Amino acid sequence: MGVVVVETKDAVRAAVRAYRDSAPGREVGLVPTMGCLHEGHLSLVRRARERNGLVVVSIFVNPTQFAADEDLDRYPRDLERDLEVAGAAGADVVFHPSTSEMYAQAHATWVEVERLTEHLCGSSRPGHFRGVATVVAKLFGIVAPDTAYFGQKDAQQSLIVRRMSEDLDLGVKVEVCPTVREPDGLAMSSRNAYLSVEERRQAPILRKALLDVAAAIDQGERDPRRVETVFRGRLAESALARLDYMEVVATSDLAPVERVAGEVLVAAAVWFGGTRLIDNVMVSV
Amino acid sequence: MGVVVVETKDAVRAAVRAYRDSAPGREVGLVPTMGCLHEGHLSLVRRARERNGLVVVSIFVNPTQFAADEDLDRYPRDLERDLEVAGAAGADVVFHPSTSEMYAQAHATWVEVERLTEHLCGSSRPGHFRGVATVVAKLFGIVAPDTAYFGQKDAQQSLIVRRMSEDLDLGVKVEVCPTVREPDGLAMSSRNAYLSVEERRQAPILRKALLDVAAAIDQGERDPRRVETVFRGRLAESALARLDYMEVVATSDLAPVERVAGEVLVAAAVWFGGTRLIDNVMVSV
Repeated sequence: MGVVVVETKDAVRAAVRAYRDSAPGREVGLVPTMGCLHEGHLSLVRRARERNGLVVVSIFVNPTQFAADEDLDRYPRDLERDLEVAGAAGADVVFHPSTSEMYAQAHATWVEVERLTEHLCGSSRPGHFRGVATVVAKLFGIVAPDTAYFGQKDAQQSLIVRRMSEDLDLGVKVEVCPTVREPDGLAMSSRNAYLSVEERRQAPILRKALLDVAAAIDQGERDPRRVETVFRGRLAESALARLDYMEVVATSDLAPVERVAGEVLVAAAVWFGGTRLIDNVMVSV
Repeated sequence: MGVVVVETKDAVRAAVRAYRDSAPGREVGLVPTMGCLHEGHLSLVRRARERNGLVVVSIFVNPTQFAADEDLDRYPRDLERDLEVAGAAGADVVFHPSTSEMYAQAHATWVEVERLTEHLCGSSRPGHFRGVATVVAKLFGIVAPDTAYFGQKDAQQSLIVRRMSEDLDLGVKVEVCPTVREPDGLAMSSRNAYLSVEERRQAPILRKALLDVAAAIDQGERDPRRVETVFRGRLAESALARLDYMEVVATSDLAPVERVAGEVLVAAAVWFGGTRLIDNVMVSV
């Protein structure tokens, strides 16, 4: 309630500085979002509220993480509702800059994270993580939070951002929070709004196929190719699902494993019509 | 005098934080160096001393800005003397980290600045400015100064760092200070120590050739090719000088100009034996 909306870097910097001066020793949390807030985002806001004296939510649909043929223009936006639900979940400040406020016309600097960006969504969406790492570095610079909150649904993004914050000494801790799901298991995502009724009905197959994989590994499966066979077997039950990728990678460097061992991330992207959904499951053996 | 030497990121962060808590509103200045401090560096320290409550000098020979065939191993080092002269010039804290303190084994993140890095030293030393931008971003993150001080001798570096700080919203002002010269005009540089007696005798030709260029432009020369002819004509007087590059670029984007107009940077790199020296002159028409 009573969330303050600011649209300039200077204003959000001033708000954070004023808070820090008024409450020495208390912490500042940042929840970076592209808006259209759903329960997944709001769980991050609530977590930030529990842990910090000041909670900043950024809402910025970052053009540099979309390729030319992607869904930048139709990405859902609903600022009025976002402010209401962010405030109710505990946000103090919403930072909602324009593109020209975020990126100077002469902008020339990009943050590249090697290795962690090579597989999974990095190969399906070239340049995507360069845009993500750059805008998150900027948000960390502007807000200078103690901790930033990301969702496990975007597992690769979280690991890249954490590596980036450490490598560039930005001084921001990255906390990864559990994926929030619809009752039928579909991971919450702003892109779920694109699904037709029938696509929406079939979309939970992605989660089911990942749970099948986790069960197979629990029962001793160690061969990533057979893991993929399990995954594809379940996915075939949906006439509309088209596989983009399914990979079994080490959580340390996100490189594909030869054999399932230690802590692995099984991550997948699946198209339903024109909508690409992602989800993942972490397994330790 | 009484300069404090710290070797870890945590220690320098703690020193800056303690200063800021003790002196609210006073500013912090950073002079990033690779050590072997000469009068050029010390002029930056003195400038920082005039303008800030706390002056931090970093001394770190950054391996990621050297190519495999460059002079990383023989780059001159003299910490004891550096501490003495930095303290005398007004440094409060010298940050002198090891390579493993600066770069985690899993380091994977690089800061790339487009366009500004394409010409001049950027084409002669591929990857050099990626290393510079990355380590300076890290130093800005660690020290969080209000202002950082760089020398005009490294004009391209200063412009790249300023662009980077603005683009990544690091909140650090970049102040560029005049080149300090030996009595015969040679720009101060740690690499001057590599020169043989005869190379050292001939090295001021670089400055002389740049002054010839400035005079020719003053007298109406507007064609960059004829500017280069003037430069080469003077350089030919030195038997040991071998031209790496001489370019006339716009200060806005460091792209070569078709005609001299507005504010241009005439920058050159010249080899004397195994030593590569750089210098430049800014001209407004």
